[in-house]
Amino acid sequence: MSQQRRMMKLGAFLPAPGHHVAAWRHPHARPDGGLDFDYYRGLVRTAERGLFDMVFLSDGAGVRTKYRDADELSRQGRMVHFEPLTLLSALAVHTTHIGLTATASTTYNEPFNVARMFASLDHLSAGRSGWNVVTSATDAEARNFNLDRQPDHAARYRRAREFMEVVTGLWDSWEDDAFLYDKVSGRFFDPDKLHILGHRGEHFQVRGPLNVARPPQGHPVIVQAGSSPDGQDFAARWAEVVFTVQQTLDGAQTYYRGLKKQVADYGRDPDEVKILPGAFIVVGRTQAEAEDKYATLQDLVDPVVGLGMLSYQLGMVDLAGYDLDGPLPELPPTEGSTSKQQLIYEKARREGLTIRQLYLSVAAGRGHRFLLGTPESIADALEEWFVAEAADGFNIMPDYLPDGLDAIVELLVPELQRRGLMRTAYEGTTLRENLGLRRPAFRGAAGVSS
Amino acid sequence: MSQQRRMMKLGAFLPAPGHHVAAWRHPHARPDGGLDFDYYRGLVRTAERGLFDMVFLSDGAGVRTKYRDADELSRQGRMVHFEPLTLLSALAVHTTHIGLTATASTTYNEPFNVARMFASLDHLSAGRSGWNVVTSATDAEARNFNLDRQPDHAARYRRAREFMEVVTGLWDSWEDDAFLYDKVSGRFFDPDKLHILGHRGEHFQVRGPLNVARPPQGHPVIVQAGSSPDGQDFAARWAEVVFTVQQTLDGAQTYYRGLKKQVADYGRDPDEVKILPGAFIVVGRTQAEAEDKYATLQDLVDPVVGLGMLSYQLGMVDLAGYDLDGPLPELPPTEGSTSKQQLIYEKARREGLTIRQLYLSVAAGRGHRFLLGTPESIADALEEWFVAEAADGFNIMPDYLPDGLDAIVELLVPELQRRGLMRTAYEGTTLRENLGLRRPAFRGAAGVSS
Repeated sequence: MSQQRRMMKLGAFLPAPGHHVAAWRHPHARPDGGLDFDYYRGLVRTAERGLFDMVFLSDGAGVRTKYRDADELSRQGRMVHFEPLTLLSALAVHTTHIGLTATASTTYNEPFNVARMFASLDHLSAGRSGWNVVTSATDAEARNFNLDRQPDHAARYRRAREFMEVVTGLWDSWEDDAFLYDKVSGRFFDPDKLHILGHRGEHFQVRGPLNVARPPQGHPVIVQAGSSPDGQDFAARWAEVVFTVQQTLDGAQTYYRGLKKQVADYGRDPDEVKILPGAFIVVGRTQAEAEDKYATLQDLVDPVVGLGMLSYQLGMVDLAGYDLDGPLPELPPTEGSTSKQQLIYEKARREGLTIRQLYLSVAAGRGHRFLLGTPESIADALEEWFVAEAADGFNIMPDYLPDGLDAIVELLVPELQRRGLMRTAYEGTTLRENLGLRRPAFRGAAGVSS
Repeated sequence: MSQQRRMMKLGAFLPAPGHHVAAWRHPHARPDGGLDFDYYRGLVRTAERGLFDMVFLSDGAGVRTKYRDADELSRQGRMVHFEPLTLLSALAVHTTHIGLTATASTTYNEPFNVARMFASLDHLSAGRSGWNVVTSATDAEARNFNLDRQPDHAARYRRAREFMEVVTGLWDSWEDDAFLYDKVSGRFFDPDKLHILGHRGEHFQVRGPLNVARPPQGHPVIVQAGSSPDGQDFAARWAEVVFTVQQTLDGAQTYYRGLKKQVADYGRDPDEVKILPGAFIVVGRTQAEAEDKYATLQDLVDPVVGLGMLSYQLGMVDLAGYDLDGPLPELPPTEGSTSKQQLIYEKARREGLTIRQLYLSVAAGRGHRFLLGTPESIADALEEWFVAEAADGFNIMPDYLPDGLDAIVELLVPELQRRGLMRTAYEGTTLRENLGLRRPAFRGAAGVSS
């Protein structure tokens, strides 16, 4: 890895009103933006102007209704929004270089449909699609898919692993140059270049071929947020971009080293996996300006919502009845991303926070690294992790939108460019080219044809 | 129904190379168009210039591989193409008035995902989405979804009926004015306007709510091709646009009267269902020009493909080994759309066609009404059915693209307009407004909240 050429990879993680839990109440926020295409087009074009590698859209197949009633739920800002694949398809034809990463669940979809949608998005965007693979983590989603509770963590990952075999196999249904379109001979494709998957496994039986040509990128970029041991193992085997929650340099370095080693253990090149910790950012021209921005948002946090968010971050534990100005009680472990839960407990103990202080701190960063300051101090903080092999880049989480993203692009990006940490022009036209990831070689199925 | 205001409703049914089985081999055709967004944008803008009500994209979740081997399959022109919901999402933001109807299967999807994608497309297009509901009809698709053979016809329709209850219920998760976005009070929505579906049925258990606001059209327009008794019953209960295969005026009138009666039997207004027989069109400035166009295409039909298409139209019967220049043998009934099969048998007997003559005739119209001629003669044929209560309009199937659609828009549409049979400007901005369909009233779930 040549040090002078290593550039930070940046995702722009863009939920409609921004990441702060009270973002939608900010005077400049667009709380209806989640279903407004022009609003999203504006955001994504800003990110493209800022030379981000990709936009990243998280997703869940349901509305979290863990609040005690609709009255409590009505205070939560994010609730309805575009389905990510339809939104990114529309954005694909209004952008030219930025990557488009959508979340889709392996638990509540069929692999043929997922393979097909992402292949289609990759063709629409001429090679800019990414798939953030999730196994989903709430009962609220399970209840929209014929279940009372979600399958357990291990079962979800078992299905996810087989799901990946099927999806990547389907993307390799047709060799890159399979289609001849030869009008004279009447040959639409070369019969030797069609490969039938014929998958038969524990969860899936999928014959193929896919009815979409091999994606321009070979395979859309695989993104994953692997924190649990199962998640890290999955990431090591499959992911090309890893989005992770890290709060301390030590913790991030340990995670980085550990995951890169696991990647190598799978026989993969560790450089082929880009690790991007989340970074929740509040940037101002001065420290005071940043602090003012933050105070404005913190003042808007509704206690009901703060508590709901904390409960969610802790894996849906019930915090009702505890004194908001007392300490966080010891609570039983739950299904979900347990390492994120652990980080929050550690933070509460380390800093001696009350429940209220904790939810205010979580409301800010949503459990992610929280960076508030000037372009210089934030660039320092990002650079520190980047050079210390704690990160290959960051998934940037603006506090509120659109202002927060504007400020990042206008203030922070130029500072990173001045330091030679960030590109000044896109290197390529596909997401893989910009991330510096190789295009997967064709790996045809065992051999049955038609 | 006031006669002077009744206008033909027109769908533009646009598979990438056109409807003729040899369309892709035409010198002007774009055989790679199925995965070229600019090509599709051009087509759909042409249809919008022609004031069509909607574009209609058929779909299957797999590649038909009924051919004996890949070598035979390689002669089939349509095989890989965009997935319709991603394509229509991209087209939504490059068009302003034309409806966007995508096919999705109730057999190989989950209702939550389908409800969500179409709601999202409806928001992206500001109320121009339509869903062509299919139950799928090939084993090739079943084999991509964990099955060896497709579920039988009755089972597919049983699932489809419950699927519709769930999807329409999810679209009514939120009342039209549920979202307050009230920054000051901190109320994102009005808690009384959230409705939890809580569906528990034979096939599905889906709680809701949908994480998309109620679609601009209330519900996307429901389109269906109901030909079998199950299909017609389904259409009568659910469809707002029916696409049907009809070859004779008598047959079309019988179907039209029968379906409108079934609609009324469900307590629905028969005017709320628009019946559009398919019309395969070859139009020229003169009869000779049209005949030349047709001959050019017929000369390009590969016998392997012609036979494969005939076999498909007959419900996947095996025709290998029969003399191409002999008569169509009596064959056992198969799963699939059996009424289409019946029409082909009748046509073969009526006209005394050999297998070769039959596949050449099917290659042209794909079993649909076949109209070749001048703008005047084709307008006569369409008008005859329209005024005789055999059709509320037509799903127009151009022979090859883009020329065939250009010719229809430049020659046929003006002729229909001159006769007062077609609009000269869009009446509204949503698909419902243009089709003259009412916006469904909100029909909240029984009452549970949050």
